[in-house]
Amino acid sequence: MTVIYERVALIGLGLIASSMFWAMKRGGVAGHVTGYARSDETRETARRIGLCDEVCDSLVDAVRDADLVVLATPVGVMGRVAEEIAPHLKPGATVIDVGSVKRTVIEEVGPHIPEGVHFVPCHPMAGTEHSGPEAGFSTLFDNRWCLIVPVEGSDPAEVERMQAYWQALGSNTEVMDAEHHDLVCAVVSHIPHLIAYTMVGVADDLRRVSDQEVIKFSAAGFRDFTRIAASDPTMWRDVFLTNKDATIEILGRFTEELMALQRAIRTGDGEQLHAYFTHTRAIRRGILEAGQDTDKPDFGRVKVER
Amino acid sequence: MTVIYERVALIGLGLIASSMFWAMKRGGVAGHVTGYARSDETRETARRIGLCDEVCDSLVDAVRDADLVVLATPVGVMGRVAEEIAPHLKPGATVIDVGSVKRTVIEEVGPHIPEGVHFVPCHPMAGTEHSGPEAGFSTLFDNRWCLIVPVEGSDPAEVERMQAYWQALGSNTEVMDAEHHDLVCAVVSHIPHLIAYTMVGVADDLRRVSDQEVIKFSAAGFRDFTRIAASDPTMWRDVFLTNKDATIEILGRFTEELMALQRAIRTGDGEQLHAYFTHTRAIRRGILEAGQDTDKPDFGRVKVER
Ligand SMILES: NC(=O)c1ccc[n+]([C@@H]2O[C@H](COP(=O)([O-])OP(=O)(O)OC[C@H]3O[C@@H](n4cnc5c(N)ncnc54)[C@H](OP(=O)(O)O)[C@@H]3O)[C@@H](O)[C@H]2O)c1
Ligand SMILES: NC(=O)c1ccc[n+]([C@@H]2O[C@H](COP(=O)([O-])OP(=O)(O)OC[C@H]3O[C@@H](n4cnc5c(N)ncnc54)[C@H](OP(=O)(O)O)[C@@H]3O)[C@@H](O)[C@H]2O)c1
Repeated sequence: MTVIYERVALIGLGLIASSMFWAMKRGGVAGHVTGYARSDETRETARRIGLCDEVCDSLVDAVRDADLVVLATPVGVMGRVAEEIAPHLKPGATVIDVGSVKRTVIEEVGPHIPEGVHFVPCHPMAGTEHSGPEAGFSTLFDNRWCLIVPVEGSDPAEVERMQAYWQALGSNTEVMDAEHHDLVCAVVSHIPHLIAYTMVGVADDLRRVSDQEVIKFSAAGFRDFTRIAASDPTMWRDVFLTNKDATIEILGRFTEELMALQRAIRTGDGEQLHAYFTHTRAIRRGILEAGQDTDKPDFGRVKVER
Repeated sequence: MTVIYERVALIGLGLIASSMFWAMKRGGVAGHVTGYARSDETRETARRIGLCDEVCDSLVDAVRDADLVVLATPVGVMGRVAEEIAPHLKPGATVIDVGSVKRTVIEEVGPHIPEGVHFVPCHPMAGTEHSGPEAGFSTLFDNRWCLIVPVEGSDPAEVERMQAYWQALGSNTEVMDAEHHDLVCAVVSHIPHLIAYTMVGVADDLRRVSDQEVIKFSAAGFRDFTRIAASDPTMWRDVFLTNKDATIEILGRFTEELMALQRAIRTGDGEQLHAYFTHTRAIRRGILEAGQDTDKPDFGRVKVER
């Protein structure tokens, strides 16, 4: 229970910001937390559920005295938010964003950060299919990774402090550069989401198989795609628009491999298929060993008993 | 607790057969169950864990007196197994298979079924990433669907009885024809598996992102793919080789859609992306309402508390 930032301002009050709030309270990481979201509705909800010590009706009020300002809106509006708050930031304050993309955010937010204010982009790699102020919970970041992406001129001491902050929220932390961040995330997150959206779209679109059938029989594999394909459309639109290069690169690799497997199916090349399918098991084992998933059959969704 | 088949023979003793055994015992659905698997090792394991009332060392011994013979091997060997057991089947007995593909299995198994023996192809739509005799558990089929695919000349009374049998094992049942079955399964199961394998393969293959990184950061979406990409390679090879037409059709649709989304990313068409991503949420809701998944964040893998 050590306060790391005395006054914190959360801009955007969705899944990530609300989880940060509950995790900060759990860990005693912040003294006082203000919050702001675009709509009256979200601000009202936040007040009703006790999200933030104080919900402000203007961006400027929220950030005025903050030692730490967290940009937790969709990536596409962060530049504009930064521009608006810039003149009101306290000297010595720190601004972070929690966007899923880093290069574009740095390009769009960075230039607005005034002299004497720190900027340390972060990306907590944790999420659910739910969004909004009521979706958050204190354990979201526990044992997950938060990537910290210093910019040119980032103060090393502030980067250190940021690691301590995310660790106090339950995360492991790792520091990497923006370009590598965007590529890693394209692989482990952005392209999997795009593929899941596509597969759900194809299933929905197929005349000869009804939606009812797709839903009924989803447990056979399809279901695993639908969770991530239910994620917030605005967030994901912004991710793809702002991580264009890496997503298009990985998409190209993906299509190439898929075509090779399609060819093996068409020509009946069982050996190639078997070899390919054998290879991928090792990765799954690694994930289980790293504690990033449970080994229970079906993710523990069925009760195991004999 | 009504015995539906007095003597049952399980050919192949993997995930599906062992789950059937435990579910039959739980429900009192069978009087006596024999089992056979190809390797000494699997037969030994089965004996050790009490899987089957009697584990036989030959295919012929296992099926000799059986009222119900279950083909629970990979799809690719079912024709050969059927040929071998055919002369030893009891008149009036019923043969079923549990293969994930139906048209090819019917073509390969059907011709060997002797006059006076029933053949009722089945497909229990339930599975985990695990395989082998120790992977099974009695609740695998509970609240899942079993598709029953009668062949030309299937006795309607026997199809009825087969529905009662799977219901006694915990399943819901639905009857459909083989062609439709193979298309539905291509959509909800086969292509999702192929895509998952491909995505895991791409991630593994990428020089600039290490396997360690992929594993560490997998919770961001990628992880959901690895479970299904850890499934048995032999089973899946056989599925793709035997459901070629439907998988290639759906794969074509999938690639088409993916290219359209790639184009939207490249040209910065945010509206198209947003519309596409919005659309797919409805399907997810349908799955939750149908009770085919849990709504817990992260599949209940993180404990939710405030
Ligand atoms: N969800 C994930 O899995 C995940 C994981 C890691 C990082 N992230 C990143 O975290 C950020 C937030 O994601 P989230 O899942 O928490 O989103 P969310 O639940 O959809 O919440 C977004 C919040 O931003 C507010 N907002 C939108 N435009 C705004 C504006 N112009 N000014 C002020 N507030 C505005 C929204 O307010 P209203 O409610 O009033 O519209 C809402 O409170 C995104 O950048 C995302 O890339 C998400
Ligand atoms: N797993 C699923 O998700 C799932 C779902 C629905 C339907 N299915 C279908 O169910 C069937 C079995 O799948 P499973 O997951 O139970 O597989 P599994 O766990 O890999 O077990 C396959 C069993 O078949 C035996 N076998 C292989 N070749 C044989 C032969 N020539 N003669 C006798 N036994 C032989 C194996 O014996 P050894 O151990 O000695 O090699 C093993 O006991 C497949 O057709 C599959 O398509 C699977």
